[in-house]
Amino acid sequence: MTILLYDLVGRDASRPFSPHCWKAAMALAHKGLDFEKVPTPFTAVPGVEGGISKIVPVIRDGDKTVSDSFAIALYLEDAYPDRPTLFGGDGGKAMARFIERWSQLTIHTYLGSAALKDIHDVLAPEDQAYFRKSREARFGKRLEEVPAGREAGLATFRASLEPLRSTLSYQPWIGGASPLFADYIVYGAFQWVRIISPFPVLAENDPVAEWFGRCLDLHGGIGRKVPAAA
Amino acid sequence: MTILLYDLVGRDASRPFSPHCWKAAMALAHKGLDFEKVPTPFTAVPGVEGGISKIVPVIRDGDKTVSDSFAIALYLEDAYPDRPTLFGGDGGKAMARFIERWSQLTIHTYLGSAALKDIHDVLAPEDQAYFRKSREARFGKRLEEVPAGREAGLATFRASLEPLRSTLSYQPWIGGASPLFADYIVYGAFQWVRIISPFPVLAENDPVAEWFGRCLDLHGGIGRKVPAAA
Repeated sequence: MTILLYDLVGRDASRPFSPHCWKAAMALAHKGLDFEKVPTPFTAVPGVEGGISKIVPVIRDGDKTVSDSFAIALYLEDAYPDRPTLFGGDGGKAMARFIERWSQLTIHTYLGSAALKDIHDVLAPEDQAYFRKSREARFGKRLEEVPAGREAGLATFRASLEPLRSTLSYQPWIGGASPLFADYIVYGAFQWVRIISPFPVLAENDPVAEWFGRCLDLHGGIGRKVPAAA
Repeated sequence: MTILLYDLVGRDASRPFSPHCWKAAMALAHKGLDFEKVPTPFTAVPGVEGGISKIVPVIRDGDKTVSDSFAIALYLEDAYPDRPTLFGGDGGKAMARFIERWSQLTIHTYLGSAALKDIHDVLAPEDQAYFRKSREARFGKRLEEVPAGREAGLATFRASLEPLRSTLSYQPWIGGASPLFADYIVYGAFQWVRIISPFPVLAENDPVAEWFGRCLDLHGGIGRKVPAAA
């Protein structure tokens, strides 16, 4: 049976942008499972599957629903053990959590500010109202002011990727010889900004950009099928 | 047969301090292997096992020698597959590399500067001469000047540990429900400074400090048997 993936979108349902939904989409594709995306604007999230989650991604697999990208990956690993592994064992499950926390605290912190206004701009009017209110409360300033430091912070952001860049000098993927969910965790963040914003967060000759390009090619190029923001 | 671990020391052979040698010692203990430390001052490293490595740790296991802490852990995992795992699978091997690069680039960068003069001070005179020359060339300034910013940088350093701190809110060890080599990678850095310097790099109520205390208790408390610098 086809799995449903509730996937965050703005005005254009063909340009899903949520980093966490991309993580889930890549995990489903990695397992080779049939899935169908259900385009879900911000203001539709509370109604997903009768209101089981405040966030997307949510998946429905038969009579089972799961929310949160990491929980979805763990669920898929348990439910489909004969498909390609997402974690490469229990150690990989544990250390993927570290990589998720690093990605969230290092990459998302910068990108979430840098692209905040760009995110707003792709939303439908009712979602823009929700987004402005919730994000202005979170940041304590107007949406328009949040990305102001992105140019000044870019060099520091790029330097903060050095643990990833250095890892990629040892092995082609965070997961080693082939990609694992840990790759999709970090990929999700860069795919988010690629779709939302023309702001060049990575230098073209950065090994991280090269790795990200290979991520876009995975699983039939599902990531690349959504064109970059122009 | 007892494995030999060539272990960096200063004047006091009972206070080995190298972060990388501690990683190897913990890996050997984790596998439950008999091993004997061979105290090795800086200036003795080039003569270890006929000069096979510019760095310690080096281990000799029967007719096999291995240098580099990560390579040692991989060797032990392959050579002793029936002993407790150090990686928890191939995914854990790959992601432990990311954690090593993060630890090296985040933790070692700060601690290596903060404790540089303290390291010098525990060395024997001939090692002090080598250490001063090599480190002053690396830092481009006098040894005494390098730790000058450690007080000013402490809050930023502690904040940079947030990915680890956050991970420990999900699970007791970096390795998940029980420690893996990834824990010993980060432990090695904090054990280094604990033995070398009275400078308080972690706040007492930091979850990272609590985790480090549990690391010190592992494997019969081999880490705690060396008293902290006073």
